[in-house]
Amino acid sequence: MNPDFSFILQATDGTARKGEIRTPRGVVRTPAFMPVGTAATVKAMFAHDVRAAGADIILGNVYHLMLRPGAERIARLGGLHHFMRWSYPILTDSGGFQVMSLSKLRKLNEEGVTFQSHIDGSKHHLTPERSMEIQDLLGADIQMQFDECVRLPCSEEEAARAMRLSLRWAERSRKAFRDTPGRGVFGIVQGGASKPLRIESAKMLANMDFHGLAVGGLAVGEPQEVMLDMLDVTLPHLPTHKPRYLMGVGTPDDIMKAVARGIDMFDCVMPTRAGRHGLAYTRFGPLNMKNARHAEDANPLDPESDCPATSNYSRAYLHHLVKAGEILGMMLLTQVNVAYYQFLMNGLRNAIHAGNLDNFIAQTREGWERGKA
Amino acid sequence: MNPDFSFILQATDGTARKGEIRTPRGVVRTPAFMPVGTAATVKAMFAHDVRAAGADIILGNVYHLMLRPGAERIARLGGLHHFMRWSYPILTDSGGFQVMSLSKLRKLNEEGVTFQSHIDGSKHHLTPERSMEIQDLLGADIQMQFDECVRLPCSEEEAARAMRLSLRWAERSRKAFRDTPGRGVFGIVQGGASKPLRIESAKMLANMDFHGLAVGGLAVGEPQEVMLDMLDVTLPHLPTHKPRYLMGVGTPDDIMKAVARGIDMFDCVMPTRAGRHGLAYTRFGPLNMKNARHAEDANPLDPESDCPATSNYSRAYLHHLVKAGEILGMMLLTQVNVAYYQFLMNGLRNAIHAGNLDNFIAQTREGWERGKA
Repeated sequence: MNPDFSFILQATDGTARKGEIRTPRGVVRTPAFMPVGTAATVKAMFAHDVRAAGADIILGNVYHLMLRPGAERIARLGGLHHFMRWSYPILTDSGGFQVMSLSKLRKLNEEGVTFQSHIDGSKHHLTPERSMEIQDLLGADIQMQFDECVRLPCSEEEAARAMRLSLRWAERSRKAFRDTPGRGVFGIVQGGASKPLRIESAKMLANMDFHGLAVGGLAVGEPQEVMLDMLDVTLPHLPTHKPRYLMGVGTPDDIMKAVARGIDMFDCVMPTRAGRHGLAYTRFGPLNMKNARHAEDANPLDPESDCPATSNYSRAYLHHLVKAGEILGMMLLTQVNVAYYQFLMNGLRNAIHAGNLDNFIAQTREGWERGKA
Repeated sequence: MNPDFSFILQATDGTARKGEIRTPRGVVRTPAFMPVGTAATVKAMFAHDVRAAGADIILGNVYHLMLRPGAERIARLGGLHHFMRWSYPILTDSGGFQVMSLSKLRKLNEEGVTFQSHIDGSKHHLTPERSMEIQDLLGADIQMQFDECVRLPCSEEEAARAMRLSLRWAERSRKAFRDTPGRGVFGIVQGGASKPLRIESAKMLANMDFHGLAVGGLAVGEPQEVMLDMLDVTLPHLPTHKPRYLMGVGTPDDIMKAVARGIDMFDCVMPTRAGRHGLAYTRFGPLNMKNARHAEDANPLDPESDCPATSNYSRAYLHHLVKAGEILGMMLLTQVNVAYYQFLMNGLRNAIHAGNLDNFIAQTREGWERGKA
């Protein structure tokens, strides 16, 4: 293993865990939420504001970056951190999920995937080796194995085939990962909505030399219950001394439930995307700022928030900006949401440390209920 | 006149002037450029970044604000400064220009203008009295008379009719202006592209009790030469002890030429609009960031700029953001452009103070030429 990349488990509360991933670029306090920086930008936010909102780490997308501006170009320009002026840890996904969700005309075989760009229709090829090469060119601190992600629902056969292919790709990815000091690579548990397949995948990956393990292929349309069932069967088979990352999840409620089960890391476009569409995440639950009830409300979203976008602007002003389609509205609400997600993670970490996670979760829910009243 | 609102002429260089407009909300160093904050936001910029870019004053639009969110609503919410979290001076236009350029189905008579909103087709009425009432509700530090602005080219008769109507509206506006301590009201010279009409308008307005005088109805499609001709005939008839504001102008070149002739204030959507469309104003002239020649350029736009957006990000990154349609690209380039305009104004003020304006203008032009090479 890599001595400059480590995971320290600091406290547990039931199955929930608090810890730190330590890298040369900085510490990632877990449970951690990673704002998504798809195309070398957390959309509508300055990198320094992402940091100020409390984020220790962000996520970059191999699929988007390989298509535009290109991994070799970013490498020539000094790597992704320097390119986007974010000097803290970055995790990159492997491209597998976006190839499934965004690209056109996919052709998949044992070797890898050929697909057409959703931007210009150009043809591209991804293999475990090329995905790891791209992530190395980008300079990601945490790199993900290349996997095949299937949409849910899908047949047991299809889920089994994709899971086993992903296991073979996991071995190839691990081998292709360049063991640069301070960088880690994670394997990804697949298996659709099948408990036996998830267990098989988890057991196999647990025995490989990964720095952390992810649960993938969830948050792809299934009910929350299915997602939680999959976590319940998977997590007991993952080693406790490695960080566990639930990919693409989720709502604040999803996150609290997954943290209680022992997940350490999350990413999701929800806070940023919702911010561009007029939704504000707060201690009082999500608020639709388009709603006319905010039009004359001089109160900020939350006067007690440390986030200036949350505490310094009136709801009336945010309502006006959203109604008028102003970019500043997207900027402020994105900041509000990224800060709220970090606030929630901080609360979860403190609660695990103090051994009162259940209480914290109950209180958080009460706040959301008060917001509805 | 209003003792809390004053204009101090500090230096001249030929016909060019350096001075200060002093208001309780802050000093406006002239020649000044006012970023346009149309709908209670300088588009794609945080108010604190507008200030950090060097702006002493911004402009708000009566037309936009009366339609959405409404002047009375803004007043109930504490006025425009508080609403948009900008505590420094604000100038509001009177609505006359946008009624001409944006609204549909106008009906104009001696009393005022009836028009349809470009947003929802709703019917609205503006008179000099209502325009001044709105500007008072907004709490603008500098308010503009209500005027009729005609498109160029137009007939001498049409220009004369609109100019004389604007003079009668000037008297009504001055009378309707609430003489709140610290606030001023400006008259607007009209007269289309006719020298005699411009002179007539200027002479009449010079004798009214305004705190400043504007030259309106230019930058509406005429060649730069026509605009400069109008300034040459108009400015000698305006009192030297009042600030002079050239409305809606313009390019850096327009501004330098107008400053040399004795203009003290400007506003224009150019820096902000151009920033949202991939154009960067710099010491090396305007740069189209969509251009492929920036794709691998690791240099910032200008390493010597005080503006972080100008000095801290590579041209390659800005190019990428613009090509990908990322909001951060608009945010950064808007900041670049607002900062460049303020940098230019600061240079003009220093040059007038030092008595070497011609030299400064020549050097500025040389920089633009170098950028083309």
